[in-house]
Amino acid sequence: MSGPSAGTGSVTVIGLGPGDPRLLTAAAQEALAQAQDLIGYIPYVARVPERTGLVRHASDNRVEVDRARHALELAASGRRVAVVSGGDPGVFAMAAAVFEAVEAGDPAWARLPITVEPGITAMLAAAARLGAPLGGDFCAMSLSDNLKPWEVITARLEAVLRADFVVSLYNPISSARPWQLGKALDLAAEIRRGDTPVIFARAVSRPDEAIRVLTLDAARTATADMATMVIIGASATRLIPRGDATPFVYTPRSVPAA
Amino acid sequence: MSGPSAGTGSVTVIGLGPGDPRLLTAAAQEALAQAQDLIGYIPYVARVPERTGLVRHASDNRVEVDRARHALELAASGRRVAVVSGGDPGVFAMAAAVFEAVEAGDPAWARLPITVEPGITAMLAAAARLGAPLGGDFCAMSLSDNLKPWEVITARLEAVLRADFVVSLYNPISSARPWQLGKALDLAAEIRRGDTPVIFARAVSRPDEAIRVLTLDAARTATADMATMVIIGASATRLIPRGDATPFVYTPRSVPAA
Repeated sequence: MSGPSAGTGSVTVIGLGPGDPRLLTAAAQEALAQAQDLIGYIPYVARVPERTGLVRHASDNRVEVDRARHALELAASGRRVAVVSGGDPGVFAMAAAVFEAVEAGDPAWARLPITVEPGITAMLAAAARLGAPLGGDFCAMSLSDNLKPWEVITARLEAVLRADFVVSLYNPISSARPWQLGKALDLAAEIRRGDTPVIFARAVSRPDEAIRVLTLDAARTATADMATMVIIGASATRLIPRGDATPFVYTPRSVPAA
Repeated sequence: MSGPSAGTGSVTVIGLGPGDPRLLTAAAQEALAQAQDLIGYIPYVARVPERTGLVRHASDNRVEVDRARHALELAASGRRVAVVSGGDPGVFAMAAAVFEAVEAGDPAWARLPITVEPGITAMLAAAARLGAPLGGDFCAMSLSDNLKPWEVITARLEAVLRADFVVSLYNPISSARPWQLGKALDLAAEIRRGDTPVIFARAVSRPDEAIRVLTLDAARTATADMATMVIIGASATRLIPRGDATPFVYTPRSVPAA
């Protein structure tokens, strides 16, 4: 990786983790400290402290590829640019948008130093709070049908439910997509037992964190919002009661022979 | 969470990330600094610097649940115990073993303060090095048939290949399991195109890191070892060439309507 010499711009796509600054990696902190320009969706840019020499470009534009292009243009002009994402930038966040923009844009952009600093993605943060619900094979899916047909989402969900994966649902709901989570849980209830553990983990590690361990039956009528991560247990996922405290939730590593 | 008062032991299961200490979170570093006992498989314990007051219990025992029981016994006797895992402890690592031991063991163990500090799991570290190969829906599976029947593994793999997930394979190979990865890639070749990108990411972020971007056809005869993470692309996963450098690999966020 080339250093910050004149005319050598760069893009670093940085995972800020679930919210608590203690969940950033040291490498992500260093990358933030070296940036000249900071690009991201408003709440993520707001997590990064202001400092002299850092130009902040907070955006409420939901079109990620626009932000990605802006970052690449700045880097091509010689700036050291940090693009910030919540969680891990490679998991339903900004990294794919940056490479989409590279592929579709100025051929010179592919020769820029573009690096990705991984972060703690929401499903890992939620799982850690509860025990080890991802202890077996698992999948991560986005429930948003903004970028893929709903039929693809339901076919994928049915496949992994039938194959007995733990399923983490990102982007489960928004004001523009109010019914998709209910439909997904209805499908789960056709395939998994009604007492399967389902986790609604909201704003993990942030001041407004709220974690619920539900049964699949109860989850079908529970409320969620954009900040909620939903994890549907596999057939073996189980609870360990702890009196009044939230139970531990874990999925054993073993699958017995049929 | 109770503090370190006399008689109040605890277990913290800590993710050390892929290897580079800069990829630990600050929270994981703090948890290591507070531990009185350190338990783990030899190479993970070796990553933690020695210090006065830290008793190290490095083990070459491959039976994770034995280590978990040892940790819980020490905690029940009043010690602050750190159990260390590579990557994220909740992903094919020590966290599930700890909760298996809790459930099967002394009922008092379920009342111990047991916490999990998440880490950067191998697939996120590998993905970040290459671009955004996990940019769409993805799965993580262990290829080890030590703990589940091979028939379950192949049924799950076939399901997620047909449903067009990116597939991350943990524990792809060992001296005792030499043929499973080849069989898995043969199955992939029945379902995905021969030019599908496949990543062999070995020892990411460690001094002996070696990353290869192959086609599925070439991957079927490539060598891997225990330290290798294998990521099989989805139908849309693609390369962006960069001259002599390793190409970027990414999976677009969108799935077009059929």
